[in-house]
This record gives sequence, C-alpha cells and structure tokens, in this order.
Amino acid sequence: MALILYDLAGAEADRRFSPYCWRIRLALAHKELAVETMPWRFTDKEAIAFSGQGRVPVLVDAEKTLSGSWTIANYLEQKHPDRPSLFDGRPRTALTRFIESWTDKVLLPGLMPLILVDVFAHLHEKDRAYFRSSREQRLGITLEAACANRDEKVMGFQQTLEPLRATLEIQSFLAGEEPNYADYIVFGGFMWARSTSPFKLLEKDDPVALWRVRLLDRFEVARLAPGYDT
Amino acid sequence: MALILYDLAGAEADRRFSPYCWRIRLALAHKELAVETMPWRFTDKEAIAFSGQGRVPVLVDAEKTLSGSWTIANYLEQKHPDRPSLFDGRPRTALTRFIESWTDKVLLPGLMPLILVDVFAHLHEKDRAYFRSSREQRLGITLEAACANRDEKVMGFQQTLEPLRATLEIQSFLAGEEPNYADYIVFGGFMWARSTSPFKLLEKDDPVALWRVRLLDRFEVARLAPGYDT
Repeated sequence: MALILYDLAGAEADRRFSPYCWRIRLALAHKELAVETMPWRFTDKEAIAFSGQGRVPVLVDAEKTLSGSWTIANYLEQKHPDRPSLFDGRPRTALTRFIESWTDKVLLPGLMPLILVDVFAHLHEKDRAYFRSSREQRLGITLEAACANRDEKVMGFQQTLEPLRATLEIQSFLAGEEPNYADYIVFGGFMWARSTSPFKLLEKDDPVALWRVRLLDRFEVARLAPGYDT
Repeated sequence: MALILYDLAGAEADRRFSPYCWRIRLALAHKELAVETMPWRFTDKEAIAFSGQGRVPVLVDAEKTLSGSWTIANYLEQKHPDRPSLFDGRPRTALTRFIESWTDKVLLPGLMPLILVDVFAHLHEKDRAYFRSSREQRLGITLEAACANRDEKVMGFQQTLEPLRATLEIQSFLAGEEPNYADYIVFGGFMWARSTSPFKLLEKDDPVALWRVRLLDRFEVARLAPGYDT
C-alpha cells in the first residue's frame, strides 16, 4: 500500500505550500519512496482527526499514522535504513535540530511578513476566514499591516540569512557535497514562498538563491510544483 | 614535543578570551591532548610571523604550523582519529559549518556591543591603542558608544539566541547527548564574555545558561580560567 501524506493545499488542489509538508515531500523523494498526497485545508480538521491532532503533515503508512515533520522524518529514516540516509548516519541527527530551530525561529518568522498576504490569496475559500482570524490574532495586526513595506523589510530578511549564506559560500549544500534533510528543512521555507508569492526574496547571484536553484534542479517534485520563479 | 598554541591574552597573561582560541582549547581537551599555551597580544605580530599571517589561534605541532580555528580543528581530527571525534564522523563536519556561520554572523556580533568595553579594560597596556583604533574604525563609533544601553540591548541579544535555546530545550548539547566541536564553537563565544565581562548575559534558568554550566562542569580548562560567573 502506498504511503499517504496529508498535505496543505491552496484554492487549487495542487498548490501545496506548507514548509513542514515540503520537508516531508523532499524527504520522501530523497528516499525514493512513492507517496499519494491528499490535499488538505486548514479547516479540514475532521479529515485528520484520526491522527489525534489537527495539523499537517500527517503520514499514513499502512496501519501506522504519524504527525509532526521531525517525527515523520525520523520514522522514515528508521524504517528504510537501506535507502539513502536523511541524516548521513545517526549522530548527525542532533546537529540537524539546530538547523530546524533556526528555520522555525528565524527563517519562517522572517518570511511571514513578506508572503502572508500572498499565502492568503491562494487559500481555498473555505479556509480564508479561519486563516485570517487565527493569524491576525497571533500577530496582533491585520495580514495587510503585517506585510506592509515589504520592499524595506526584505533587506532585513536577507540580512538574517547571513549564517546560511556564509555556509553556502563554502559548500554546495548544508549537508556538504550532497543535500540531506537539513537542506530540506530550510528549503521547505523557500517552497512555502515559491508556492504562493511572486515577491522577490533574493538577488539572483545570492549564494542562497544559487543553492535554491540547485535543489530545484534536483527535485522535480519541487521544480514542477505550482509556484513563482522570482 | 608538546603542542604549542598561541592564545590571545589580556593584561594578566592567564586571562585568555579569544572565542576562536577557546574553540581550539576545548577541542584539545576533548581529544585529551596536552598543550602548552603561549600568551599572545594583538600587537605581537612578529611573534607569529612564522605562521604566515597575523592572527591567533596558531598551533605548532613539531614541524607543522597551522592557523585558523577550522583548519586546526580538522587537522587535529585527522591526525588523531583514535581520539574522541570532534565531529562524530566525517559527514557531520558539513553541518558544523552552519553552526560556525551562525556563531560568526549572529552570536559574536551580538556579544560585541555587550562586552567590548570590558574586553578593552582587560587588555595589556601595549594592545589598547591598537585595539581601540582598529575596532572603532570597523564599528564607526567609539567602544563606549558601541556598548551604550547594554541593559536594553541584552534583550535583543537573548532573542537572537532562540535557535540555540530551542535546540537545547530538546537535547543536552548541540551534538546530542555529548558535546562536540559544534558546542565548542558556540561556547567559545560565551568564554570570550566570561573571561572579560561581569555583564549578565543570561537569566539563570535560560536553557542556554544551563548548557553553559554543563560545559563548564565538563571542562576544567574553562571552569578554572579567570572569568566572571554571572
């Protein structure tokens, strides 16, 4: 039985934009595992109620149900040790946690005020009220206010990428010569943006932009996904 | 013949504070290698001229001379594969580069305006003019101006530690259950501060502060070094 992944979708069912789901889609591609993705919207809580929680990614593997991108990535690694490793061996997992923490605490919050109005524009009609009210409550301001002055904000955003840029000036991928799950964690953030937003985040010659292209070139699942190449 | 490390010192020869030299002192302790450290001051350019450049750490291993903390750490790893690994195996090195980039681009620049006046106060008399003019030229303002409003700035500094904090809420060390060179890179920044500055950087119950204590508890070379426990 094929793996099933519940994957956040926009108004168009094939526009997938969750940075956390992208981590798993790339992890599955890395491990060369076939998957059937189920488009899921924020308000489809009952559709994943069987997972015991209300967020995607949710992965169903025959009798097993898993949620949370870190949990799923580690599950895939342990279940398929014969496939290409997501972490290049067990000890590496711990350092990947720092990449994940940086992504969740710096990259994704930095992307939010640059793309949130575009994410909203791509949502399914039924998700819009939920998305607006939940995000505006969290932010304390409207989506539009959060995304004001993007042209100025993007400079600060690019500045926060310095650790990533400095690393990618030294080596092709975070994981070295070849990408692994550490790369997919960060790249998932850029797929969130690419899937929803025409706003230009990076200069073409930025080492981060060149790395993004290298990953798009490697992963058809990402390159062929609906999105904006800015 | 013992290893010799040229190590940045303050007015007191045993006050060592370079975050880059600390990386190597901890790496040597990790590998249980004896070292003789030579106190060195910024203006002692001629004393390390044999290394072909003008900065510490410089490591002399019999006929070999090495400079640059990354180069030295990798040299030690390759020369002593039988000793505890600094990277837990070769593939991990690449991810450690991101930790290094984050430290150099975020942590150390964030510490600078909190401790620079205290670093200055601990310098050897002969280094003061050089340090002040080179740093003030780089910063575009006086050391005192750079360190103004520390009580406010420290909040922003603590905020930038979020990726580190989130990781250390999950696991004891960046490298997992046991520390390795990734931890020493970051901890070197905190040793820079501890060696020179009584300014309180962290709340006692901050996961980052607890990790700092765990490392001090493990490394006498750090715990017994002249410094401030704030």
